[in-house]
Amino acid sequence: MQDLDEFTVTEAALAQMAKTPDPRLKEIMDAAVRHLHAFAREVRLTPAEWLTGIQFLTAVGQACTPFRQEFILLADVLGVSALVNAMHDKKARELGTQSSLLGPFYREGAPELPRGASIVAKPSVPEIVIYGRITNNQGAPIPNALVQVWQTSEHGLYDLQAENAAEVMDLRANFRADADGHYHFRTVRPLGYSIPMDGPVGEMVRQQNRHGFRPSHIHFLIGCEGYRELVTALYFADDEHIDSDTVFGVSGSLVVNAKEDPDSPIPGLKAVRYDFRLAHAEAGDTGRVGADPSKLMKAAE
Amino acid sequence: MQDLDEFTVTEAALAQMAKTPDPRLKEIMDAAVRHLHAFAREVRLTPAEWLTGIQFLTAVGQACTPFRQEFILLADVLGVSALVNAMHDKKARELGTQSSLLGPFYREGAPELPRGASIVAKPSVPEIVIYGRITNNQGAPIPNALVQVWQTSEHGLYDLQAENAAEVMDLRANFRADADGHYHFRTVRPLGYSIPMDGPVGEMVRQQNRHGFRPSHIHFLIGCEGYRELVTALYFADDEHIDSDTVFGVSGSLVVNAKEDPDSPIPGLKAVRYDFRLAHAEAGDTGRVGADPSKLMKAAE
Repeated sequence: MQDLDEFTVTEAALAQMAKTPDPRLKEIMDAAVRHLHAFAREVRLTPAEWLTGIQFLTAVGQACTPFRQEFILLADVLGVSALVNAMHDKKARELGTQSSLLGPFYREGAPELPRGASIVAKPSVPEIVIYGRITNNQGAPIPNALVQVWQTSEHGLYDLQAENAAEVMDLRANFRADADGHYHFRTVRPLGYSIPMDGPVGEMVRQQNRHGFRPSHIHFLIGCEGYRELVTALYFADDEHIDSDTVFGVSGSLVVNAKEDPDSPIPGLKAVRYDFRLAHAEAGDTGRVGADPSKLMKAAE
Repeated sequence: MQDLDEFTVTEAALAQMAKTPDPRLKEIMDAAVRHLHAFAREVRLTPAEWLTGIQFLTAVGQACTPFRQEFILLADVLGVSALVNAMHDKKARELGTQSSLLGPFYREGAPELPRGASIVAKPSVPEIVIYGRITNNQGAPIPNALVQVWQTSEHGLYDLQAENAAEVMDLRANFRADADGHYHFRTVRPLGYSIPMDGPVGEMVRQQNRHGFRPSHIHFLIGCEGYRELVTALYFADDEHIDSDTVFGVSGSLVVNAKEDPDSPIPGLKAVRYDFRLAHAEAGDTGRVGADPSKLMKAAE
């Protein structure tokens, strides 16, 4: 007869999962149970607190829609996404550009625009230009890489946060680098922004007295056959939250400034020059820590 | 400038949460982040696996309805609910009846029936009688305690699993013990059953090669002013899964048999006699590890 206490219940749970055929699933769930149980024991979690946790996770799941991924947001603000990213990045780091979080606002199906086009439908401030080269880890140009970019507007909102999000595609586009690896596009300097504070994760961040802000940044997802997909972002140095990103995505090597630049491909606009280095792909590699919210919902159904 | 690696990101996350005003929330989230990060580092969680986890948790949240609580089910099959229960029970255990899991099928608003009534609308097998006394931890009767019971049918399903769950209330009722603490009611021996296997948690249990069964049992939630609410269940000894409960709820002291009993308050029916001992309440006490799914959904909205 089982007669379990707070320690033997852990062994019993591990024993029940011991016949999991997939060794990696077994390894992950084994560790998940051990750490989850250790957490509950360490804080002496009470039934009422257990229930609060259930309610919180239920609310996070229910807040997910094809246009909002509250669980990615939760993983982001707890530093888990940045941690997974850092581990994944370790190998590629010396070879290629450092990666950063994809975050919950990536979206597939953005329009492919010609080099030099603006990704902003109605800019209300002077535009800047972002330009540079896509190279391999030796600095040799990679031709025709697909450069996907997305960002908030000068007011700090993504298109996915518009009320009619399903009909709006703005502040994002895909570009093809040319045969020499050159890319450039116009945009506005995005405004740093608060993560969505109207859901359960926002409520948690508020209860933690955190400011909830991310510094101004532009997301990049760069892919080319034979290379590891690069998920990263460029952060603007003059943002007041550059050292206290709520989701721990900033790295020194990704910080930039928009400035006068005689080499800019579009004279007269302030420019950011950034060259991205892609690492060679390994089997089964994916650098993507994040995904289109609508895809995740389909998987959840 | 932050430049975080897989270790310093943990410190950065803890530092951001350090100003949480509620000391208990701070303690819990601090431990949650440390254990979550330790888990991810131990298994070297990859971006693709991180995404699988996000998808899984999203699916669990989306599977929750006013009639189904998939997150409680997840906590149950991972042994977390039983662990929280065991910790909570420690103090009361020598004094009162051992507790067990409330599970995801509790429901408020069950009908109050007279002592001796049947909780089964249409029994297709001979009924049995459950009877006994509600006492304090000295064995002295507690008058008029509210005894809430619920269970699966002889076919292994709760009313909440019916297609028209919102309209059906069956296999559950509330009874008042009499002035001497006596209670009794009729029911059918419930069938042991599989946890719901049509959702993400069921899929996980299947991938772990677990049978997914709970042994036959009847749930009890017993409350009386001044006493700690008792959440427990009686398990039938002859069930083949009595030693391998998928949610780790069985304890030796809660195992019973239905048998011929000359003392049964309803002659001719096989009977289970069980006396429940309630512990005295302490301030802020709740023994309830679980809740009505519809209440949890309201909280999530």
